[in-house]
Amino acid sequence: MQILDKIKLPEDIKKLSVEELEFLADDLRNVITKCTLANGGHLASNLGVVDLTCALNYVFDFPKDKLIFDVGHQCYAHKILTGRLNEFNTLRQKDGLNGFPKREESEYDTVNSGHASTALSIACGMARGNIDGNIICLIGDGAMTGGLFFEALNDALTLNKKIIFIINDNNMSISDNVGFINEYLKIVRKYGNEFSFLDIEMLNNIDGHNISDLMGKLKYAKNSQKTLVLHVVTKKGKGFEEAELNPSKYHSVGKENAKPTYCQVFGETMIDLADKNDKIYAVTAAMTDGTGLSGFAQKYPQRLVDVGIAEGHAVTMSAGLALAGKKPFVAIYSTFLQRAYDNVLHDVCLNKLPVVFCIDRAGFVGGDGETHQGLYDVAYLGATPNMTIFAPKDGEELKNILTWAQNFDAPIAIRYPKNEISKDYNLHTAIKYGKWEKIEYSDSHTVLISNGETLSAVCESAQILKSQGISVDVINARFIRPYDEEMLESLRGKKLFFFEEYVMQNSLYSQTLEKINKEQDKTTQIYGVNIPNKTYAVATRKELLREVGLDSQSIVEFVKSKL
Amino acid sequence: MQILDKIKLPEDIKKLSVEELEFLADDLRNVITKCTLANGGHLASNLGVVDLTCALNYVFDFPKDKLIFDVGHQCYAHKILTGRLNEFNTLRQKDGLNGFPKREESEYDTVNSGHASTALSIACGMARGNIDGNIICLIGDGAMTGGLFFEALNDALTLNKKIIFIINDNNMSISDNVGFINEYLKIVRKYGNEFSFLDIEMLNNIDGHNISDLMGKLKYAKNSQKTLVLHVVTKKGKGFEEAELNPSKYHSVGKENAKPTYCQVFGETMIDLADKNDKIYAVTAAMTDGTGLSGFAQKYPQRLVDVGIAEGHAVTMSAGLALAGKKPFVAIYSTFLQRAYDNVLHDVCLNKLPVVFCIDRAGFVGGDGETHQGLYDVAYLGATPNMTIFAPKDGEELKNILTWAQNFDAPIAIRYPKNEISKDYNLHTAIKYGKWEKIEYSDSHTVLISNGETLSAVCESAQILKSQGISVDVINARFIRPYDEEMLESLRGKKLFFFEEYVMQNSLYSQTLEKINKEQDKTTQIYGVNIPNKTYAVATRKELLREVGLDSQSIVEFVKSKL
Repeated sequence: MQILDKIKLPEDIKKLSVEELEFLADDLRNVITKCTLANGGHLASNLGVVDLTCALNYVFDFPKDKLIFDVGHQCYAHKILTGRLNEFNTLRQKDGLNGFPKREESEYDTVNSGHASTALSIACGMARGNIDGNIICLIGDGAMTGGLFFEALNDALTLNKKIIFIINDNNMSISDNVGFINEYLKIVRKYGNEFSFLDIEMLNNIDGHNISDLMGKLKYAKNSQKTLVLHVVTKKGKGFEEAELNPSKYHSVGKENAKPTYCQVFGETMIDLADKNDKIYAVTAAMTDGTGLSGFAQKYPQRLVDVGIAEGHAVTMSAGLALAGKKPFVAIYSTFLQRAYDNVLHDVCLNKLPVVFCIDRAGFVGGDGETHQGLYDVAYLGATPNMTIFAPKDGEELKNILTWAQNFDAPIAIRYPKNEISKDYNLHTAIKYGKWEKIEYSDSHTVLISNGETLSAVCESAQILKSQGISVDVINARFIRPYDEEMLESLRGKKLFFFEEYVMQNSLYSQTLEKINKEQDKTTQIYGVNIPNKTYAVATRKELLREVGLDSQSIVEFVKSKL
Repeated sequence: MQILDKIKLPEDIKKLSVEELEFLADDLRNVITKCTLANGGHLASNLGVVDLTCALNYVFDFPKDKLIFDVGHQCYAHKILTGRLNEFNTLRQKDGLNGFPKREESEYDTVNSGHASTALSIACGMARGNIDGNIICLIGDGAMTGGLFFEALNDALTLNKKIIFIINDNNMSISDNVGFINEYLKIVRKYGNEFSFLDIEMLNNIDGHNISDLMGKLKYAKNSQKTLVLHVVTKKGKGFEEAELNPSKYHSVGKENAKPTYCQVFGETMIDLADKNDKIYAVTAAMTDGTGLSGFAQKYPQRLVDVGIAEGHAVTMSAGLALAGKKPFVAIYSTFLQRAYDNVLHDVCLNKLPVVFCIDRAGFVGGDGETHQGLYDVAYLGATPNMTIFAPKDGEELKNILTWAQNFDAPIAIRYPKNEISKDYNLHTAIKYGKWEKIEYSDSHTVLISNGETLSAVCESAQILKSQGISVDVINARFIRPYDEEMLESLRGKKLFFFEEYVMQNSLYSQTLEKINKEQDKTTQIYGVNIPNKTYAVATRKELLREVGLDSQSIVEFVKSKL
């Protein structure tokens, strides 16, 4: 840490020799490895770009020059070098540093991001806006499968404004790379400078761990008058042997779960279903591991479709599979399914095709922060025609709905969070379309209604309330859409409390208000706790649930305040 | 019509000679031109593919073979040849033929569509699903700028399943083509067969109006074992001189409007604003004409950005413009903004950037039918953080909000429909953030609340009610978000009627119910009419508004039924 301690701001880097820069890179790797293993985060990708980040900060004049990270998970070294060393141990913790670029943190962060393939598009806008300074975007080869990257490329290559476009070629997205772009890059790696886009200058096969060479190439780019592409070859996990050997495992590190997760149950169930039903396909967008499909991929490689980071295509291609009589199960995180909203609406819903959306990381996600929260799926899917939405209460119910869904003849979305299954219920009634389930029922006047993981907090609250002599019933409103009208009929005149881990729009609370109002029912009382429409920075799921009042203690207090 | 009358189904085409096929093409052009000029629709693009459609139906065995039209607006000849000649005069009319492919109409329509760049993605799914038959997709060169096309291409080129991929190169999208793909196609046109994607076989520069040659090339493709690309050069409007000379005008024909439209006011205002504010940029996705920006494009070509059919990039690039200190106004139709949902949320809203979304064709669109209805924008934008939503009541108010928006420091969406401005109001109070406007106010117990074009029907209803001795007040709830809490306070205890031309989710009616409920206000009565969540096939705006109860007569009846 002898060099790093001297770096307060990037200006200080410019005074270093190449040898000192190499020591600086070592220091950075130590800090990043230590802190990421402790706090969780993206280890392998950050280790891969340490040398490049040193060279970038040496050659360019940030923040006058603008550095745009694609996705942004590879920004750790840049954060440390731009005045955030002392805070770096707060990475991904409540009130601490965000794991992705964040403008509110520093003027050295150009744009808040967290989703892939956006950087070149942002760069086109900034270039068109004639900012005073160089624009450098750093894009991983994995993000080059995203359609937005291509839309931006189509613009950038004819824009006549200078953009320095660095491909960080580590030959991986989160999982292995796929498709034509990958084949293309293989050619680049093999034939070097013979490859180019139209007449754009490309510097190919730059060693991403040779700081001196990187500095030379970046200086050349700085002095050039035109857009150019630097193809930099890096090694994910560089400098940390375990991560180098297993970069997929070390892409994002976090605590191991003690109990099974929804994701695991999903993966296991998919294998069981595929064993018996050869129409079943599993579709993912560069998230085979993340969505729990590695086992499926091994057993049924022909029926596992990984389209790369290309959520739109994953969904529309699944519409095609359904048209061919297959049963596609598309596993995508809630926040990334946003990128395929029109594909869901236009290609699946309007065609009423039997595509099963398996929405992982629905609700609060914890460490990844505001760009990754899965809060909107119920709102944006709830307004589309023909879409059914379901949230299972535990692993068994996830299994049951997946099994049920394979025979359903219209689109269905199944949402479950990124975490352990906190409670295994004894009760598992058969799935009936649009029907809720009575978990605890003694015809109490007070009824708590919830679904998914939130239901376990509600059950806990019910126990506490009962221990205090307050009788409550509990209902599993597992179908968020369609609504169980019959159940509502049976609850007329009571106090109904809704607890839901998504925003208010199209929540069951909101839907109930409309139904009750339409019939001018003044006897039923409705209360609801949802997630308010604001951004949620990094914190644990537990902290965030407490913040919005969806932990068991808050639920108890809320109910008692209304009795 | 001597040949066409004999064609009941595609089998009949196979009996014709080349010469007869040429006569058939003439017949088709006559029917299409006559009917489209009468009913409105996509004239130039349909005339362009008549010969190709004849050849396709001659060579392939539909519906066993699958023909997938990208967008789908160029399907008229195919509809006529596949048993729908007699119904063709009902095109784009209520209960008539849809102007885009529709599975419910015919087994010869492979997939319902209306948005661009989806066909190859659907084809990848069907190919992966191993359907029994050839898969042919027909994609216009304009749709090749869409990112989804690229995501699909990345998959298709390494899929090892046969797809026949026809590029219909007419050197246009709706407006002129842009960008790198366009430059690429220029090279193809010039150098012919030297161009190819990887090792995929390409047949370049096929004359799209030479039926005999088309038949030969299509037969070759049919017999090939591998994916191949046919680059077919066609002329938009072929065979109808006026349309050939002015294909942009004849892309989609319809009735001329007698009064000014919102679109026109938008275009004129943008020029006025740009005259005084050099930070203003207008951004469009291949809709310069359609969104009213042709005048702006002529006067300020440097500040008009047309990115081609690439809505995602239009939005994220605008985030970049805003980061560079510019004021981007992004003009996109409501239905197409769905394609940029995550770009709005992740790149604009989370960064709280001052991008102005000018959402044309919000609400019912009429002739284009279910794939083009603009019903969801309030629902999907209403749940995002930091987004303001506004609906102007007339042209003057549109002008006022656009003028106001240039100084607003956060994202704002302004929605207006595809039609004439039906009423010009005398009253135009200054825009105040989140504040509604009292249109008619005498402290009546009954208050009608609405916004946008719907407000004119509401005002008409108010007059009718008054003429019947029923006193009502009228409020212009022009900010859909944020909600005017202060106004609601002043209306407590009254009967409030909401009339809104969008779906229920996040409507003012729905928002009001939550507010009233939260405060346990039992004295205020709330009623609402919104657009129910279902699909709406072709019909006029008037017919559709009547169907959902948003015409003035329905509004009168609804109010009276609740008094």
